[in-house]
Amino acid sequence: MSKFEEKTIQSKEIFDGKIIKVSVDDVLLPNGEISIRELVKHQGAVAVIAVTEDRRFLMVEQYRKPLEKAIVEVPAGKLEPGEAPEVTAVRELEEETGFTTDQLEYVTSFYTTPGFCDERIYLYYTDQLVPITEEKALDEDEFLECQSYTMAELDQLVKDERIHDLKTMYALQYLKLRGF
Amino acid sequence: MSKFEEKTIQSKEIFDGKIIKVSVDDVLLPNGEISIRELVKHQGAVAVIAVTEDRRFLMVEQYRKPLEKAIVEVPAGKLEPGEAPEVTAVRELEEETGFTTDQLEYVTSFYTTPGFCDERIYLYYTDQLVPITEEKALDEDEFLECQSYTMAELDQLVKDERIHDLKTMYALQYLKLRGF
Repeated sequence: MSKFEEKTIQSKEIFDGKIIKVSVDDVLLPNGEISIRELVKHQGAVAVIAVTEDRRFLMVEQYRKPLEKAIVEVPAGKLEPGEAPEVTAVRELEEETGFTTDQLEYVTSFYTTPGFCDERIYLYYTDQLVPITEEKALDEDEFLECQSYTMAELDQLVKDERIHDLKTMYALQYLKLRGF
Repeated sequence: MSKFEEKTIQSKEIFDGKIIKVSVDDVLLPNGEISIRELVKHQGAVAVIAVTEDRRFLMVEQYRKPLEKAIVEVPAGKLEPGEAPEVTAVRELEEETGFTTDQLEYVTSFYTTPGFCDERIYLYYTDQLVPITEEKALDEDEFLECQSYTMAELDQLVKDERIHDLKTMYALQYLKLRGF
Protein backbone atom coordinates (compact mmCIF):
# COMPACT_ATOMS: atom_id res chain seq x y z
CA MET A 1 0.00 0.00 0.00
CA SER A 2 1.31 3.42 -0.94
CA LYS A 3 1.61 6.06 1.78
CA PHE A 4 -1.62 8.00 2.44
CA GLU A 5 -3.43 5.85 -0.14
CA GLU A 6 -6.89 7.06 -1.17
CA LYS A 7 -9.13 4.15 -2.12
CA THR A 8 -11.81 4.76 -4.74
CA ILE A 9 -15.30 4.14 -3.41
CA GLN A 10 -17.06 5.11 -6.61
CA SER A 11 -16.21 6.92 -9.82
CA LYS A 12 -18.67 9.04 -11.79
CA GLU A 13 -17.85 9.88 -15.39
CA ILE A 14 -18.54 13.53 -16.20
CA PHE A 15 -17.13 13.87 -19.72
CA ASP A 16 -15.66 11.59 -22.38
CA GLY A 17 -13.97 13.78 -24.98
CA LYS A 18 -11.48 13.50 -27.82
CA ILE A 19 -8.49 14.61 -25.71
CA ILE A 20 -9.59 14.21 -22.10
CA LYS A 21 -11.98 12.29 -19.88
CA VAL A 22 -13.21 13.77 -16.64
CA SER A 23 -14.51 11.92 -13.60
CA VAL A 24 -15.37 12.74 -10.02
CA ASP A 25 -14.37 10.01 -7.59
CA ASP A 26 -15.43 9.48 -3.99
CA VAL A 27 -12.32 8.41 -2.09
CA LEU A 28 -11.62 7.04 1.36
CA LEU A 29 -9.00 9.23 3.06
CA PRO A 30 -6.29 7.88 5.42
CA ASN A 31 -8.30 9.19 8.42
CA GLY A 32 -11.43 7.25 7.41
CA GLU A 33 -13.28 10.31 6.09
CA ILE A 34 -14.67 10.49 2.58
CA SER A 35 -13.72 13.20 0.11
CA ILE A 36 -14.02 13.78 -3.62
CA ARG A 37 -11.29 13.99 -6.27
CA GLU A 38 -11.80 15.66 -9.63
CA LEU A 39 -9.76 13.68 -12.16
CA VAL A 40 -8.76 14.39 -15.75
CA LYS A 41 -7.59 11.39 -17.78
CA HIS A 42 -5.25 11.92 -20.72
CA GLN A 43 -3.60 9.43 -23.09
CA GLY A 44 -0.10 10.79 -22.43
CA ALA A 45 2.31 12.46 -24.80
CA VAL A 46 5.86 12.71 -26.07
CA ALA A 47 8.23 15.63 -26.58
CA VAL A 48 11.46 15.70 -28.58
CA ILE A 49 14.53 17.88 -28.09
CA ALA A 50 15.89 18.17 -31.65
CA VAL A 51 19.37 19.63 -32.15
CA THR A 52 20.78 20.48 -35.58
CA GLU A 53 24.37 19.94 -36.72
CA ASP A 54 25.15 23.64 -36.13
CA ARG A 55 23.80 23.45 -32.55
CA ARG A 56 20.45 25.09 -33.18
CA PHE A 57 17.22 23.82 -31.63
CA LEU A 58 14.04 22.98 -33.54
CA MET A 59 10.91 24.48 -32.01
CA VAL A 60 7.30 24.81 -33.13
CA GLU A 61 5.07 27.83 -32.65
CA GLN A 62 1.35 27.22 -32.27
CA TYR A 63 -1.74 28.84 -30.83
CA ARG A 64 -2.75 27.42 -27.48
CA LYS A 65 -6.42 28.06 -26.88
CA PRO A 66 -6.31 27.70 -23.06
CA LEU A 67 -3.66 30.48 -22.94
CA GLU A 68 -5.24 32.54 -25.77
CA LYS A 69 -1.80 33.09 -27.28
CA ALA A 70 0.73 31.42 -29.55
CA ILE A 71 3.79 29.97 -27.83
CA VAL A 72 7.04 28.33 -28.93
CA GLU A 73 7.48 24.74 -27.76
CA VAL A 74 9.57 21.64 -28.29
CA PRO A 75 7.94 19.36 -30.89
CA ALA A 76 5.39 17.20 -29.07
CA GLY A 77 2.23 15.21 -29.50
CA LYS A 78 -0.23 12.82 -27.97
CA LEU A 79 0.25 9.07 -27.78
CA GLU A 80 -2.15 6.95 -29.79
CA PRO A 81 -3.69 4.14 -27.71
CA GLY A 82 -1.25 1.25 -27.51
CA GLU A 83 1.51 3.11 -29.37
CA ALA A 84 5.08 2.93 -28.03
CA PRO A 85 6.26 6.44 -27.05
CA GLU A 86 9.38 6.24 -29.24
CA VAL A 87 7.18 5.55 -32.28
CA THR A 88 5.02 8.59 -31.47
CA ALA A 89 8.18 10.65 -30.97
CA VAL A 90 9.54 9.95 -34.47
CA ARG A 91 6.11 10.51 -36.04
CA GLU A 92 5.61 13.86 -34.32
CA LEU A 93 9.17 14.93 -35.15
CA GLU A 94 8.52 14.15 -38.84
CA GLU A 95 5.09 15.83 -38.95
CA GLU A 96 6.07 18.97 -37.06
CA THR A 97 9.66 19.61 -38.19
CA GLY A 98 10.21 17.80 -41.52
CA PHE A 99 13.14 15.87 -40.05
CA THR A 100 13.43 12.29 -38.93
CA THR A 101 15.97 10.30 -36.95
CA ASP A 102 16.99 6.74 -36.26
CA GLN A 103 18.89 7.78 -33.15
CA LEU A 104 16.47 8.78 -30.46
CA GLU A 105 17.75 8.96 -26.89
CA TYR A 106 15.27 8.56 -24.02
CA VAL A 107 15.75 11.37 -21.50
CA THR A 108 13.08 10.93 -18.83
CA SER A 109 9.34 10.96 -18.20
CA PHE A 110 7.22 13.17 -15.98
CA TYR A 111 3.68 13.92 -14.90
CA THR A 112 2.68 17.46 -15.82
CA THR A 113 -0.09 18.13 -13.25
CA PRO A 114 -0.21 15.33 -10.67
CA GLY A 115 -2.86 17.05 -8.56
CA PHE A 116 -5.73 16.44 -10.96
CA CYS A 117 -4.47 14.83 -14.19
CA ASP A 118 -2.62 11.66 -15.17
CA GLU A 119 -0.91 13.08 -18.29
CA ARG A 120 2.61 11.63 -18.51
CA ILE A 121 5.12 12.95 -21.04
CA TYR A 122 8.04 10.90 -22.35
CA LEU A 123 10.94 13.16 -23.32
CA TYR A 124 13.50 12.28 -26.01
CA TYR A 125 16.67 13.85 -27.40
CA THR A 126 18.28 13.64 -30.80
CA ASP A 127 21.13 15.45 -32.51
CA GLN A 128 21.03 13.11 -35.53
CA LEU A 129 18.46 14.72 -37.82
CA VAL A 130 17.79 13.73 -41.42
CA PRO A 131 15.44 15.81 -43.62
CA ILE A 132 12.47 13.85 -44.96
CA THR A 133 11.65 14.19 -48.65
CA GLU A 134 7.91 13.67 -48.38
CA GLU A 135 5.93 16.19 -46.35
CA LYS A 136 3.86 14.60 -43.57
CA ALA A 137 0.35 15.84 -42.88
CA LEU A 138 -0.45 17.50 -39.58
CA ASP A 139 -3.78 16.83 -37.88
CA GLU A 140 -6.48 18.69 -39.79
CA ASP A 141 -7.05 21.17 -36.95
CA GLU A 142 -3.34 21.71 -36.28
CA PHE A 143 -1.53 24.87 -37.45
CA LEU A 144 2.08 25.40 -36.56
CA GLU A 145 5.37 26.76 -37.75
CA CYS A 146 8.74 25.13 -37.19
CA GLN A 147 11.89 27.22 -36.77
CA SER A 148 15.40 26.72 -35.38
CA TYR A 149 16.90 28.90 -32.68
CA THR A 150 20.20 29.44 -30.89
CA MET A 151 20.30 29.04 -27.10
CA ALA A 152 20.59 32.84 -26.71
CA GLU A 153 17.43 33.25 -28.79
CA LEU A 154 15.62 30.65 -26.68
CA ASP A 155 16.63 32.46 -23.48
CA GLN A 156 15.14 35.66 -24.91
CA LEU A 157 11.91 33.83 -25.84
CA VAL A 158 11.60 32.69 -22.20
CA LYS A 159 12.10 36.28 -20.97
CA ASP A 160 9.42 37.45 -23.41
CA GLU A 161 7.05 34.67 -22.25
CA ARG A 162 6.82 33.39 -25.82
CA ILE A 163 8.29 30.18 -24.44
CA HIS A 164 6.03 29.69 -21.45
CA ASP A 165 5.28 26.01 -20.96
CA LEU A 166 6.98 23.82 -18.43
CA LYS A 167 8.13 20.94 -20.68
CA THR A 168 9.97 23.36 -22.99
CA MET A 169 11.50 25.26 -20.06
CA TYR A 170 12.61 21.90 -18.61
CA ALA A 171 14.12 20.99 -22.01
CA LEU A 172 16.16 24.22 -22.06
CA GLN A 173 17.58 23.57 -18.59
CA TYR A 174 18.34 19.98 -19.63
CA LEU A 175 20.32 21.24 -22.63
CA LYS A 176 22.30 23.68 -20.46
CA LEU A 177 23.15 20.95 -17.95
CA ARG A 178 24.25 18.82 -20.94
CA GLY A 179 26.72 21.54 -21.93
CA PHE A 180 24.86 23.57 -24.55
CA MET B 1 -3.87 39.30 -33.37
CA SER B 2 -1.76 36.37 -32.23
CA LYS B 3 -0.39 33.96 -34.84
CA PHE B 4 -2.85 31.19 -35.83
CA GLU B 5 -5.46 32.69 -33.49
CA GLU B 6 -8.54 30.53 -32.82
CA LYS B 7 -11.60 32.68 -32.18
CA THR B 8 -14.27 31.30 -29.87
CA ILE B 9 -17.64 30.91 -31.58
CA GLN B 10 -19.37 29.43 -28.57
CA SER B 11 -18.39 27.88 -25.24
CA LYS B 12 -20.34 25.11 -23.53
CA GLU B 13 -19.71 24.49 -19.84
CA ILE B 14 -19.43 20.78 -19.06
CA PHE B 15 -18.37 20.80 -15.41
CA ASP B 16 -17.92 23.37 -12.64
CA GLY B 17 -15.97 21.71 -9.84
CA LYS B 18 -13.99 22.64 -6.74
CA ILE B 19 -10.60 22.47 -8.49
CA ILE B 20 -11.35 22.59 -12.21
CA LYS B 21 -13.94 23.78 -14.71
CA VAL B 22 -14.34 22.05 -18.04
CA SER B 23 -15.77 23.51 -21.23
CA VAL B 24 -15.96 22.53 -24.87
CA ASP B 25 -15.52 25.47 -27.23
CA ASP B 26 -16.29 25.74 -30.94
CA VAL B 27 -13.42 27.69 -32.49
CA LEU B 28 -12.76 29.25 -35.87
CA LEU B 29 -9.47 27.93 -37.23
CA PRO B 30 -7.00 30.03 -39.30
CA ASN B 31 -8.21 28.25 -42.48
CA GLY B 32 -11.85 29.21 -41.85
CA GLU B 33 -12.90 25.73 -40.71
CA ILE B 34 -14.55 25.10 -37.37
CA SER B 35 -13.16 22.72 -34.75
CA ILE B 36 -13.68 22.02 -31.07
CA ARG B 37 -11.32 22.57 -28.15
CA GLU B 38 -11.69 20.77 -24.81
CA LEU B 39 -10.59 23.20 -22.11
CA VAL B 40 -9.81 22.75 -18.43
CA LYS B 41 -9.78 25.91 -16.32
CA HIS B 42 -7.71 26.03 -13.13
CA GLN B 43 -7.12 28.83 -10.64
CA GLY B 44 -3.32 28.55 -10.89
CA ALA B 45 -0.81 27.60 -8.23
CA VAL B 46 2.50 28.36 -6.57
CA ALA B 47 5.54 26.21 -5.77
CA VAL B 48 8.41 27.02 -3.43
CA ILE B 49 12.01 25.81 -3.54
CA ALA B 50 13.00 25.87 0.14
CA VAL B 51 16.67 25.44 1.05
CA THR B 52 17.87 24.99 4.64
CA GLU B 53 21.02 26.50 6.16
CA ASP B 54 22.88 23.19 5.70
CA ARG B 55 21.93 23.05 1.98
CA ARG B 56 19.14 20.51 2.28
CA PHE B 57 15.87 20.83 0.37
CA LEU B 58 12.38 20.69 1.91
CA MET B 59 10.00 18.40 0.05
CA VAL B 60 6.53 17.04 0.78
CA GLU B 61 5.32 13.53 0.12
CA GLN B 62 1.64 13.05 -0.68
CA TYR B 63 -0.70 10.65 -2.43
CA ARG B 64 -1.69 11.77 -5.90
CA LYS B 65 -4.94 10.11 -6.88
CA PRO B 66 -4.51 10.56 -10.68
CA LEU B 67 -1.18 8.66 -10.45
CA GLU B 68 -2.42 6.20 -7.79
CA LYS B 69 0.85 6.61 -5.91
CA ALA B 70 2.55 8.88 -3.38
CA ILE B 71 5.24 11.18 -4.79
CA VAL B 72 7.74 13.65 -3.35
CA GLU B 73 7.28 17.24 -4.55
CA VAL B 74 8.32 20.80 -3.82
CA PRO B 75 5.85 22.48 -1.47
CA ALA B 76 3.00 23.86 -3.58
CA GLY B 77 -0.62 24.86 -3.51
CA LYS B 78 -3.47 26.46 -5.36
CA LEU B 79 -4.05 30.21 -5.55
CA GLU B 80 -7.16 31.54 -3.86
CA PRO B 81 -9.21 33.82 -6.14
CA GLY B 82 -7.68 37.30 -6.11
CA GLU B 83 -4.73 36.26 -3.94
CA ALA B 84 -1.25 37.47 -4.88
CA PRO B 85 0.99 34.47 -5.68
CA GLU B 86 3.68 35.49 -3.15
CA VAL B 87 1.04 35.47 -0.38
CA THR B 88 -0.06 31.97 -1.39
CA ALA B 89 3.59 30.90 -1.50
CA VAL B 90 4.30 31.90 2.11
CA ARG B 91 1.02 30.37 3.32
CA GLU B 92 1.68 27.03 1.60
CA LEU B 93 5.28 27.01 2.84
CA GLU B 94 4.04 27.51 6.42
CA GLU B 95 1.24 24.93 6.17
CA GLU B 96 3.27 22.23 4.47
CA THR B 97 6.75 22.62 6.00
CA GLY B 98 6.40 24.44 9.34
CA PHE B 99 8.80 27.16 8.16
CA THR B 100 8.18 30.70 7.03
CA THR B 101 10.27 33.35 5.30
CA ASP B 102 10.30 37.06 4.66
CA GLN B 103 12.74 36.65 1.79
CA LEU B 104 11.02 35.04 -1.13
CA GLU B 105 12.67 35.31 -4.53
CA TYR B 106 10.52 35.04 -7.66
CA VAL B 107 12.06 32.51 -10.07
CA THR B 108 9.68 32.21 -13.03
CA SER B 109 6.20 31.13 -14.06
CA PHE B 110 5.03 28.44 -16.47
CA TYR B 111 1.98 26.74 -17.91
CA THR B 112 1.95 23.04 -17.05
CA THR B 113 -0.24 21.66 -19.90
CA PRO B 114 -0.85 24.36 -22.52
CA GLY B 115 -2.65 21.99 -24.89
CA PHE B 116 -5.82 21.72 -22.83
CA CYS B 117 -5.44 23.56 -19.49
CA ASP B 118 -4.67 27.12 -18.35
CA GLU B 119 -2.99 26.19 -15.05
CA ARG B 120 -0.08 28.57 -14.47
CA ILE B 121 2.41 27.97 -11.67
CA TYR B 122 4.47 30.74 -10.06
CA LEU B 123 7.77 29.39 -8.75
CA TYR B 124 9.66 30.91 -5.82
CA TYR B 125 12.97 30.29 -4.06
CA THR B 126 14.08 30.90 -0.51
CA ASP B 127 17.12 29.95 1.53
CA GLN B 128 16.02 32.11 4.49
CA LEU B 129 13.79 29.79 6.51
CA VAL B 130 12.47 30.50 10.01
CA PRO B 131 10.57 27.82 11.96
CA ILE B 132 7.04 28.84 12.94
CA THR B 133 5.94 28.20 16.49
CA GLU B 134 2.25 27.67 15.82
CA GLU B 135 1.30 24.73 13.61
CA LYS B 136 -0.80 25.71 10.60
CA ALA B 137 -3.73 23.53 9.55
CA LEU B 138 -3.65 21.76 6.20
CA ASP B 139 -6.83 21.49 4.15
CA GLU B 140 -9.08 18.89 5.79
CA ASP B 141 -8.61 16.39 2.93
CA GLU B 142 -4.83 16.94 2.70
CA PHE B 143 -2.35 14.41 4.10
CA LEU B 144 1.34 14.94 3.62
CA GLU B 145 4.74 14.54 5.19
CA CYS B 146 7.56 17.08 4.99
CA GLN B 147 11.18 15.98 4.94
CA SER B 148 14.54 17.47 3.95
CA TYR B 149 16.88 15.84 1.45
CA THR B 150 20.38 16.29 0.06
CA MET B 151 20.78 16.77 -3.71
CA ALA B 152 22.16 13.21 -4.01
CA GLU B 153 19.05 11.88 -2.28
CA LEU B 154 16.82 13.90 -4.63
CA ASP B 155 18.65 12.50 -7.67
CA GLN B 156 17.98 9.00 -6.36
CA LEU B 157 14.28 9.80 -5.82
CA VAL B 158 14.06 10.87 -9.48
CA LYS B 159 15.70 7.59 -10.58
CA ASP B 160 13.21 5.66 -8.44
CA GLU B 161 10.28 7.68 -9.91
CA ARG B 162 9.32 8.79 -6.39
CA ILE B 163 9.95 12.30 -7.65
CA HIS B 164 7.99 12.18 -10.89
CA ASP B 165 6.29 15.50 -11.52
CA LEU B 166 7.56 18.11 -13.90
CA LYS B 167 7.59 21.16 -11.58
CA THR B 168 9.78 19.34 -9.03
CA MET B 169 12.10 17.99 -11.73
CA TYR B 170 12.37 21.54 -13.11
CA ALA B 171 13.18 22.82 -9.60
CA LEU B 172 16.02 20.30 -9.25
CA GLN B 173 17.55 21.40 -12.57
CA TYR B 174 17.16 25.02 -11.50
CA LEU B 175 19.08 24.33 -8.28
CA LYS B 176 21.89 22.58 -10.17
CA LEU B 177 22.22 25.47 -12.60
CA ARG B 178 22.33 27.77 -9.55
CA GLY B 179 25.34 25.86 -8.24
CA PHE B 180 23.85 23.33 -5.83
